[in-house]
Amino acid sequence: MPQPVLAAAPTKAKLTANVAQTNRQLKLQSRPKGLLAPGDLQLAEAPLPSLTDGQALARVKYLSIDPTMRVWMATDSYVPAVAIGEVMRGFGFAEVVESRHKEFKKGDKVVGLTGLQDYCIIEAADKRGSFQKIPSIPFLSDTAFLGVLGVTGITAYFGMTDIAKPQKGETLVVSAAAGATGSIAGQIGKIHGCRVVGIAGGAEKCKWLTDDLGFDAAVDYKQPDWKEKLAAATPKGADIDYENVGGEIMHAVIDRMNLHGRIVLCGLISGYTKGDPALESFGMVLVKRLRVEGFLIIDYMNRYMEAATQLGKWKMFGKLKDRETIVEGLEKAPDAINMLFTGGNIGKLIVKV
Amino acid sequence: MPQPVLAAAPTKAKLTANVAQTNRQLKLQSRPKGLLAPGDLQLAEAPLPSLTDGQALARVKYLSIDPTMRVWMATDSYVPAVAIGEVMRGFGFAEVVESRHKEFKKGDKVVGLTGLQDYCIIEAADKRGSFQKIPSIPFLSDTAFLGVLGVTGITAYFGMTDIAKPQKGETLVVSAAAGATGSIAGQIGKIHGCRVVGIAGGAEKCKWLTDDLGFDAAVDYKQPDWKEKLAAATPKGADIDYENVGGEIMHAVIDRMNLHGRIVLCGLISGYTKGDPALESFGMVLVKRLRVEGFLIIDYMNRYMEAATQLGKWKMFGKLKDRETIVEGLEKAPDAINMLFTGGNIGKLIVKV
Repeated sequence: MPQPVLAAAPTKAKLTANVAQTNRQLKLQSRPKGLLAPGDLQLAEAPLPSLTDGQALARVKYLSIDPTMRVWMATDSYVPAVAIGEVMRGFGFAEVVESRHKEFKKGDKVVGLTGLQDYCIIEAADKRGSFQKIPSIPFLSDTAFLGVLGVTGITAYFGMTDIAKPQKGETLVVSAAAGATGSIAGQIGKIHGCRVVGIAGGAEKCKWLTDDLGFDAAVDYKQPDWKEKLAAATPKGADIDYENVGGEIMHAVIDRMNLHGRIVLCGLISGYTKGDPALESFGMVLVKRLRVEGFLIIDYMNRYMEAATQLGKWKMFGKLKDRETIVEGLEKAPDAINMLFTGGNIGKLIVKV
Repeated sequence: MPQPVLAAAPTKAKLTANVAQTNRQLKLQSRPKGLLAPGDLQLAEAPLPSLTDGQALARVKYLSIDPTMRVWMATDSYVPAVAIGEVMRGFGFAEVVESRHKEFKKGDKVVGLTGLQDYCIIEAADKRGSFQKIPSIPFLSDTAFLGVLGVTGITAYFGMTDIAKPQKGETLVVSAAAGATGSIAGQIGKIHGCRVVGIAGGAEKCKWLTDDLGFDAAVDYKQPDWKEKLAAATPKGADIDYENVGGEIMHAVIDRMNLHGRIVLCGLISGYTKGDPALESFGMVLVKRLRVEGFLIIDYMNRYMEAATQLGKWKMFGKLKDRETIVEGLEKAPDAINMLFTGGNIGKLIVKV
């Protein structure tokens, strides 16, 4: 219900009587090279913001720490980079402490883009952004709404159910498997009846995956023979790669992939702290949510007549034109092959024997 | 109909009476580095093979020259590499000159893996491989069955209709657009109502694309400002990339791709004559016919409750376990972000403010 405009607007003094006097904020001071250096994010204090009609003030309790934050600090991507001097962007869990917002009342628990600060403003309904009110459920901790039921959990959920579409008996490989998204993605694979192999760094993480989460195998990429172990753990190859890492790890998993496998490109964390040019294209595939599909005609040869009939019709009706470059003599075939790479032919290149 | 075994088996002398005495063959002598060097394929003469029951002998008339031949010479891929000393593999058009094969009679026209030679054997029915008998159709030349109605034409057909699934009004970019596959793929895009932009090398090829084939624009990648021209030719970005080239050209097209675009990875010809490590992963995506799908959770936020409900149920019934690493203090958030990249956390990483 909208607040009547004539209601006494709480002054800043009244508001802050219930809460701290200042708002600590982590602001972006410089774009990191590699790992964050001291001072890239700088702690500053600001006065608590005054509320205007339609806004609410929330106390940030927990912050979700996600790899994508490193991207936000460095560069424009699927969202603009955080501006220098701005409060660092981030998801958090917060509790409403004062409200002039029709959708949120004092005591409401919310998740959303709180930013890295003690207090955040929930804007009026038309621009409240990502804030979601969350219910109090006895068996769920507040932090669950940042993890298993939060952005990382639902990422694993949609990545697996909508993109990977796991089938019983398939083999799923998950990289960064002990991370927030990977650990959920792997378990969703188990729920769907997959053989699940996790890749993680260190014995403790690997033990957690197999002993607690029920992964069929875990491969420690810090061991020198990890690629052999990955091969041994995927005796029937891999049908799905839930990819969070990229780089050398992704290469090794692709090496194990079966024909017609699916790669859910969810993250490329190995490249976020370095300017790895090999990741450039895959990075754009991720950011633009592209679908790249490798394709060879040998899989379609049993449908040759379907294609030939349609192509023949189009050609007959003048909708399709073709051109040939014909080279004479069997002995010229090697030169003809080279023409393909030097741009020598137009249309179909043929050798007349 | 099977030949009666007691029928007089033609001797080699009788067979060759109608045809040449010898069979010229191009054999693989060494695996090329870069472009083919003289001698990588060597011309040799062999006696004409004798036919046994079930086989046919065919005179090779035309050879299809395809980029994949360079791959076959160099390395195992989706098929084993051609062995050193073996007749070079290749598609061709041939005419049956003698037959003891129940499916082919003298005069039949066939396409298939003839190899680079004057004569080839069509094996018995159980292992006749790729050979297809083709009809005589007045308006179609023999060579059409290697081009527009051949492997390259049907490649364009299935790549467009089954993988790209072009929609009216979308923008399609085709690389190597003046090649055998690209020129057909682009025209199929026009048939489906797309704006079609071809990338090709040189003014003659570009003119052919726009003036003869009806492409909406052609970009000459040999011009220094080709990337600007590509941008100008795709004012609404690109929805489909029919990719034949890879490398720098593919990067430039990906740069123009719209969200949720599709890349049909049909060839990576720019890498075939060099060992380009940047192409390694895309090369495997092609050879293994993988589907790589970039994915960001922001596209699914309106379905948050669907995921949270299912995840919550799984968690309640013990099918999903989660773990959190909690760092205390807002001021520790920068260190926490770095933990993601140094492997410091297990499960969901959270900062308690």
